[in-house]
Amino acid sequence: MDRLIKCPANYAPLSPITFLQRAAAVYGDRTSVVYGRTRFTWRETHERCRRLASSLRYLSVSNNDVVSVLAPNVPALYELHFGVPMAGAVLNAINTRLDAASVANILAHSEAKVFFVDYQYVKLAAEALDRRAARAPVVVVVDDVDSPTGVRLGELEYEKLLARGDPASLPCPVRDEWDAIALNYTSGTTAAPKGVVYSHRGAYLSTLSLLLQWEVGSEPVYLWSLPMFHCNGWTFAWGVAARGGTNVCIRAPAARDMYRAIAEHRVTHMCCVPTVLILLLEAGRADRQPLASPVSVLTGGAPPPAPLLEKMEQLGFRITHAYGLTEATGPALVCEWRQEWNLLPVDAQARLKARQGISVLSLADVDVKDTETMTSVPRNGKSLGKIVLRGSSIMKGYYKNAADTDAAFKDGWFQTGDLGVVHPDGYVEIKDRAKDIIISGGENISSVEVEASLYRHPRVLEAAVVAMPHPRWGETPCAFIKLKEGSASLREEDIVSHCRSNMPRFMVPKTVVFMAELPKTSTGKIQKFLLREAALSIYKKMQKATRGPQGGALPPPICKVAEVERSNENNRRGVVEDRVLTVAKL
Amino acid sequence: MDRLIKCPANYAPLSPITFLQRAAAVYGDRTSVVYGRTRFTWRETHERCRRLASSLRYLSVSNNDVVSVLAPNVPALYELHFGVPMAGAVLNAINTRLDAASVANILAHSEAKVFFVDYQYVKLAAEALDRRAARAPVVVVVDDVDSPTGVRLGELEYEKLLARGDPASLPCPVRDEWDAIALNYTSGTTAAPKGVVYSHRGAYLSTLSLLLQWEVGSEPVYLWSLPMFHCNGWTFAWGVAARGGTNVCIRAPAARDMYRAIAEHRVTHMCCVPTVLILLLEAGRADRQPLASPVSVLTGGAPPPAPLLEKMEQLGFRITHAYGLTEATGPALVCEWRQEWNLLPVDAQARLKARQGISVLSLADVDVKDTETMTSVPRNGKSLGKIVLRGSSIMKGYYKNAADTDAAFKDGWFQTGDLGVVHPDGYVEIKDRAKDIIISGGENISSVEVEASLYRHPRVLEAAVVAMPHPRWGETPCAFIKLKEGSASLREEDIVSHCRSNMPRFMVPKTVVFMAELPKTSTGKIQKFLLREAALSIYKKMQKATRGPQGGALPPPICKVAEVERSNENNRRGVVEDRVLTVAKL
Repeated sequence: MDRLIKCPANYAPLSPITFLQRAAAVYGDRTSVVYGRTRFTWRETHERCRRLASSLRYLSVSNNDVVSVLAPNVPALYELHFGVPMAGAVLNAINTRLDAASVANILAHSEAKVFFVDYQYVKLAAEALDRRAARAPVVVVVDDVDSPTGVRLGELEYEKLLARGDPASLPCPVRDEWDAIALNYTSGTTAAPKGVVYSHRGAYLSTLSLLLQWEVGSEPVYLWSLPMFHCNGWTFAWGVAARGGTNVCIRAPAARDMYRAIAEHRVTHMCCVPTVLILLLEAGRADRQPLASPVSVLTGGAPPPAPLLEKMEQLGFRITHAYGLTEATGPALVCEWRQEWNLLPVDAQARLKARQGISVLSLADVDVKDTETMTSVPRNGKSLGKIVLRGSSIMKGYYKNAADTDAAFKDGWFQTGDLGVVHPDGYVEIKDRAKDIIISGGENISSVEVEASLYRHPRVLEAAVVAMPHPRWGETPCAFIKLKEGSASLREEDIVSHCRSNMPRFMVPKTVVFMAELPKTSTGKIQKFLLREAALSIYKKMQKATRGPQGGALPPPICKVAEVERSNENNRRGVVEDRVLTVAKL
Repeated sequence: MDRLIKCPANYAPLSPITFLQRAAAVYGDRTSVVYGRTRFTWRETHERCRRLASSLRYLSVSNNDVVSVLAPNVPALYELHFGVPMAGAVLNAINTRLDAASVANILAHSEAKVFFVDYQYVKLAAEALDRRAARAPVVVVVDDVDSPTGVRLGELEYEKLLARGDPASLPCPVRDEWDAIALNYTSGTTAAPKGVVYSHRGAYLSTLSLLLQWEVGSEPVYLWSLPMFHCNGWTFAWGVAARGGTNVCIRAPAARDMYRAIAEHRVTHMCCVPTVLILLLEAGRADRQPLASPVSVLTGGAPPPAPLLEKMEQLGFRITHAYGLTEATGPALVCEWRQEWNLLPVDAQARLKARQGISVLSLADVDVKDTETMTSVPRNGKSLGKIVLRGSSIMKGYYKNAADTDAAFKDGWFQTGDLGVVHPDGYVEIKDRAKDIIISGGENISSVEVEASLYRHPRVLEAAVVAMPHPRWGETPCAFIKLKEGSASLREEDIVSHCRSNMPRFMVPKTVVFMAELPKTSTGKIQKFLLREAALSIYKKMQKATRGPQGGALPPPICKVAEVERSNENNRRGVVEDRVLTVAKL
């Protein structure tokens, strides 16, 4: 048996590049990409990606080089998902919500050779490039392909670059399916950002198993309501090619644009965070269009609230809930629907659907382990443990960061940092996060990072940041601060404005609470669970205060709380009693 | 990028075994296997497979050992698909339609350590074992789990073996995903049968991509109308576990049993050869039951005739046509349906559907190459070339047969031996077979092998075997024979009876034609294309002769032709003129 060896006939390295080649061969005339009035077929997309790959090689990009891009969901970003690996390089799609400092950090850490910048982000990119001390990447502006603006940043422009490329160039062969295809940063403000590296193999297998898990049939019409920079669009940047589907590109997930695209192109599938579902739900009559047929929605990033699921289903959206992380190439658990649940009442269905679910096929295993004994917790829906994953959809590791890679892969499992339970039916449900992560509108915010920034304020003595629930964003950062002596005149706005100049907008605390003392353990560690309770309590009070006479309306998106006093008596009992003094729109 | 290495957290060898483990974890209470009144859940199937694996190790089966089985589609054969690789061994499911000599050859060639025999095939197995000169395998009889018969062949019985096994045993770890999981023989009568070896990787990827290509959703109910010994049930032995579906096992694809199973278990999916479709279509009223909901059927082995497709669709079967080979782990091309075809007339749809189609995702590439220049033929639906395949779903090679392996992988492509065209839409259609293969009822028959057997008859001087069309079996072998001088008294029946004692029943020529001279080229090579024309012509005459006054009825399945004379005049023009003298039911 051992004498039978691999050869080109029976062994091909797994790579998403093959999806594009196949799509061009068998779905050649079918529409691949729609953007405004612009249309491409799979044959054309293939040709454009070949041109792109050959141009990148011409720009001296070689194997394992990083190519960065700062762009919304435009055709160019889609093409880069194939063109960059076809040049042997690694795609680094940067989160467009980051600030210049974070972008600069990523460019420096990734040592990007080429930097594609959509015209919309030229200012951000220019600021980021100004901050770079080291060798600057070659910059290519991506002008709007549908309505060119003329905006430039240097000499090179995407369409011109493509025009000079060779449409018949062959892709660099994938030497080893373990080679890197993408580099996605999980957070960008600290000195050592974590760059998650995917292999061709991992991307290929994750794509296949997500298509299977979500039951994406042939000829899907996929609306790009999820940023491609989020885990390469949860692998669907590659998956739509695998299915010979149509990519409907939009610059931003505005309700009007989404409803229009769904109606015009007969969208069948879309992914998004719950915040985007709320946008669709809250859209005014003028922005809405009826759904001609059901739209399958894969949502994740945060558990969708049950009422939201119910209302979306009523509109004709078929929602599937997934749980994932950048490190797991997007969704790792999917709440696969069971026919027997159809018989349950709607609210029970929504509760079941809000669970994180079961592993996709490319994940070899998922387990919830007791934090003390490291044995699997019983499947009773109650015993809390660490959620750990292993298998082909887990990242290669963090780029140039052996320490964090080792920590993430401790004991042969990827440590998600989340705590959860396993229900008797085998479905996992998250109960808490071990890491100090706040998920706001689908973006992860490290509370540690926000705290570090707060500490840099000259009047802040102590700071702790926790998640506060939010009906639109899921969560927002809430900062509890003890000021230095003699800072009585400092206002919450000063803290917010300090943060705004030091971090991306979405990371800025939406609620600032000054305290005389932060609750601590006897060893002096801040008791965050008490602050989380306090944040929840404040949130409930704010909701009550802002609810109109009809009730039920969503509270204003951004609030501030002037002060919460903590009674010494309660502190001893380990409870924070909060008193909301002011609630006002920022 | 290169410093990020594989570890248990981010790399798991691809293996179908993981499908069963996952099914037990997340579909534990769901019915895995139904057979008669017997029911198992996925948790039970997992436990039974663990018991089986531990018992096999107890029987001294170790890594890379072959475990053979001769059984119809009963639960044990399903369990062997996991239990054998979980013991580190290689499953060899033997075609139950073979004769004792062929089975003996396979046992010898595979060096099987253990031989599982369903009670129904004890006689065949005993005969095969009698023929073995070398070391005999350990024999385990598989009695009927639903209605035990008490039939034995030696000491061991399957259920008893399981009872002694350890339900908690861990499977042998898959050291390398390239390791062998299955060994499937393509033909069994010659001294050197070809044993096709699959790797865990190939089986895993083929399974995933076929589930995707056929769009098998969650909770399928799969009817075992295709033998599991055919490419491991076209990978669905593993695929049903991947989907947490239900396997409905039946001993044989009798129309009555299939209709009953479909109705009783609400079957959603089934695979079969066109011959089985004909059985379903011809079933009498008493054997039929209406379909509660549409049944998806994947058919292959031979192109299904357009009228057959039409009629099956009318009954509620949704037919997908696939093309494959044992060497490609079953279906390699699938005729994926396109929405735009829905607008075409029914006969045009059937014609499109009868094409072989496009590559499944695990196939890296398919091409049709000019036989002279070895360049790709133009996509015009006319230019004939060799169909070649490459990628992860192609076998590791032929077991202990380096020469045939090398020939099969010539020029870095797997040579299917079939000739075809590529249509402008990228769909491949087979036009002819380069190999002398006759496909009868989904079974491949090597005409070379049948000829070799004919030559062993003392009165046969020359023999050539070609395919004759057949409305039920697709094709049947038709033998053209030149007898030695003084053999005038020899009858066709003598030839047939000679064949019956020398080869499996399905390989025996159904038509025998004695000729004064076989048509030959100037260099003395038999002109098979002329014989194929002759066979077609005879077939048409037989159809006319047997058609009743109403017409349209299917002709009798087996006919014989006494004599066809060839005129010397026509021979010079390269045409065979045939004259049918007798047509009678055998």
